[in-house]
Amino acid sequence: MKPINVGLLGIGTVGGGTFTVLQRNCDEITRRAGRPIRITVVADKNLELAKQVTGGACRLTDDAFSVVNDPEVDVVIELIGGYGVAKQLVMQAIANGKHVVTANKALLATNGNEIFQAAQDKGVMIGFEAAVAGGIPIIKAVREGLTANRIEWVAGIINGTTNFILSEMRDKGLPFDTVLKEAQRLGYAEADPTFDIEGVDAAHKITLLASLAFGIPVQFEKAYIEGISKLDAVDIKYAEQLGYRIKLLGIARRTPEGIELRVHPTLIPAKRLIANVEGAMNAVLVQADAVGATLYYGKGAGAEPTASAVIADLVDITRMHTADPENRVPHLAFQPDAMIELPILSMDDVISSYYLRLRVADKTGVLADITRILADEQISIDAVIQKEPSDGEIQADLILLTHQTREKCINAAIVKIEALGVVAGHVTKLRMEELGK
Amino acid sequence: MKPINVGLLGIGTVGGGTFTVLQRNCDEITRRAGRPIRITVVADKNLELAKQVTGGACRLTDDAFSVVNDPEVDVVIELIGGYGVAKQLVMQAIANGKHVVTANKALLATNGNEIFQAAQDKGVMIGFEAAVAGGIPIIKAVREGLTANRIEWVAGIINGTTNFILSEMRDKGLPFDTVLKEAQRLGYAEADPTFDIEGVDAAHKITLLASLAFGIPVQFEKAYIEGISKLDAVDIKYAEQLGYRIKLLGIARRTPEGIELRVHPTLIPAKRLIANVEGAMNAVLVQADAVGATLYYGKGAGAEPTASAVIADLVDITRMHTADPENRVPHLAFQPDAMIELPILSMDDVISSYYLRLRVADKTGVLADITRILADEQISIDAVIQKEPSDGEIQADLILLTHQTREKCINAAIVKIEALGVVAGHVTKLRMEELGK
Repeated sequence: MKPINVGLLGIGTVGGGTFTVLQRNCDEITRRAGRPIRITVVADKNLELAKQVTGGACRLTDDAFSVVNDPEVDVVIELIGGYGVAKQLVMQAIANGKHVVTANKALLATNGNEIFQAAQDKGVMIGFEAAVAGGIPIIKAVREGLTANRIEWVAGIINGTTNFILSEMRDKGLPFDTVLKEAQRLGYAEADPTFDIEGVDAAHKITLLASLAFGIPVQFEKAYIEGISKLDAVDIKYAEQLGYRIKLLGIARRTPEGIELRVHPTLIPAKRLIANVEGAMNAVLVQADAVGATLYYGKGAGAEPTASAVIADLVDITRMHTADPENRVPHLAFQPDAMIELPILSMDDVISSYYLRLRVADKTGVLADITRILADEQISIDAVIQKEPSDGEIQADLILLTHQTREKCINAAIVKIEALGVVAGHVTKLRMEELGK
Repeated sequence: MKPINVGLLGIGTVGGGTFTVLQRNCDEITRRAGRPIRITVVADKNLELAKQVTGGACRLTDDAFSVVNDPEVDVVIELIGGYGVAKQLVMQAIANGKHVVTANKALLATNGNEIFQAAQDKGVMIGFEAAVAGGIPIIKAVREGLTANRIEWVAGIINGTTNFILSEMRDKGLPFDTVLKEAQRLGYAEADPTFDIEGVDAAHKITLLASLAFGIPVQFEKAYIEGISKLDAVDIKYAEQLGYRIKLLGIARRTPEGIELRVHPTLIPAKRLIANVEGAMNAVLVQADAVGATLYYGKGAGAEPTASAVIADLVDITRMHTADPENRVPHLAFQPDAMIELPILSMDDVISSYYLRLRVADKTGVLADITRILADEQISIDAVIQKEPSDGEIQADLILLTHQTREKCINAAIVKIEALGVVAGHVTKLRMEELGK
């Protein structure tokens, strides 16, 4: 089937990520979208960089307007940023009947009403999943997943730079300025960090979320914005002692008198899940009348996480062009003719770490016998905890944590361990998963 | 515009919730969907109950087949459950060209391939967001939000009953049987809890998630299933001492040899966000190559949370019938002609709790002066912490936490407090949000 032709404006971090992910996951994405998605032309001022990233796989130009005016281009991805030329390009693309995908929250928070109106008039889509919370599909969740609800409020950690700084200030007890310098060194903060640390970026995003939640026009100019640059480390410490964490939150809340739209450092109870979102991670908490609270967590920035959202919008647009409306999204995510048969592994072949608990006679040599059996099955031990026998007992609980092994190996070892005279009864086996780093 | 006519099969917990939410949020849902969604007929064996729930607002019948054969019905919601008559009804609705929305994970995990094929052939949609993790829009996230990614694994707490039981066992150190009885008394576990506690329900759900993540047919019969009924409280305690929590996880993982598809109690590091999902809440963690880890958290069961997912599917179907494909989902979630102007509140009018820190002379009467000022502004105090002065200092930090008040009241109080002779410098003010119960 004829590919969807995409023109990419800007081959910086997110543009490069988008190019890379589209190329790497080409098969998987086509199986989901129903037809190939192909970047046919890239516009960037830095042609040398563009050449390097694309490796000659597509046409290059330093004239972005030639891309939005190119009749061969179906969709334009705008990753230039800012309100100037980016706006002209988006408006021109719309005027030319092209769909637009953008990560430009600044543009949409300030000019969204005009842009969405123009898109509506021309019958094109503006995908902006990447504009809020990076790779977290929060716009889709609010716009399509929570449509049954009267949304009461949205509160989000939607700026990774400031969350990284706040996490470091708390962890290390350091002042803001020191941590900011460290964040700049590590690439978590830009050379001019103003938009991040003063809350402007978060305000752009909460402005968009407020419109999605309440059905109101975007009104960035009415948002209250307070950043973290004046935050004293002592307040983080005191908040901690009182059972609170300080996070830079974007908050949009419906009240009988109107909508609260605000960004500021906020104390939240440390026991809340969202209070435990650390480092550069993002999370959005939505309180709604039917579903209650739902939370969405993930990476809010970076090349590939943001590319994930950009490409999700591309797939949405591609699916719309490819199938009848009722077949737009395949029931099982992949097109019916692109399902594959992968074997489902027998449990014997599953790889996991294990927790073993057994009751053993409290005498020397027991542990040596058990560890030898495990070693024979190529199972290495991560930790051993021997509990002292209770008063009057002659047996003790022994707990072993293993490194990864196959289920059939641990099962074979358990049979041998249970056959040892010093082991009483059965071995309790539980599986362990790290689920992250 | 002509309403979408819905026939509802089963007016039990979720059916009742769906009816209630559709009625309560009728305006908001219509503003999003573009046309009214109307339940025109309800089928239930218990006509008395149906009458009570619907209050005579729609036609009632005890013959569910008459609903799926009714030419006036556009969409059928199947909330009967099980594999028997529910399957016949779903297949008949499809044969009659009707879209189907269902929360029936058992049916789809065992008969999904046949049902989706039939739907594909007839050009109708099967919405099943409610079948996995209740109100969390996880199917939409995997099917549409993460389409750029090669998904590596999915791990979910996808059964609220067992998570409630495990949380209680840990909190109270009680054995499984005792907590199960308590869960049954509280309505968190059914009279026959087998499907929940033995992991069958979670296996139905992870089977569906595996298909969505990897593009494979549903293969419930190949899932490994181990429940929590044999779990010993002592292992929860030992796991805790080792820095782990035990959760019943559904896991689907891609390996070079095939797909792991399994449900069992699992030790996970206590510091992971998902390890801190307590009580009857659900959460799904997805690891994917571009976006990294994303987590989705919310209520996995209950009348209105599940209704939230059912209605989201109804809105999806309605939007498809209502607008041209490119206008299917409005840019800002609500139809452009249904946007409203709500005032954005000035920060002065925002209501919040506050954290105040000030340096005060270490002498009697200071606190009385300050609390009087707050009382004059109708601000009540939640907590006061007075820090002892450091060696050689004559001033101490005083921290006040207030109950909710208006920003202008706290600002007025701060001006007066700063004017007190015993207060040095400025008062540090931070806002506090509970973000839940």
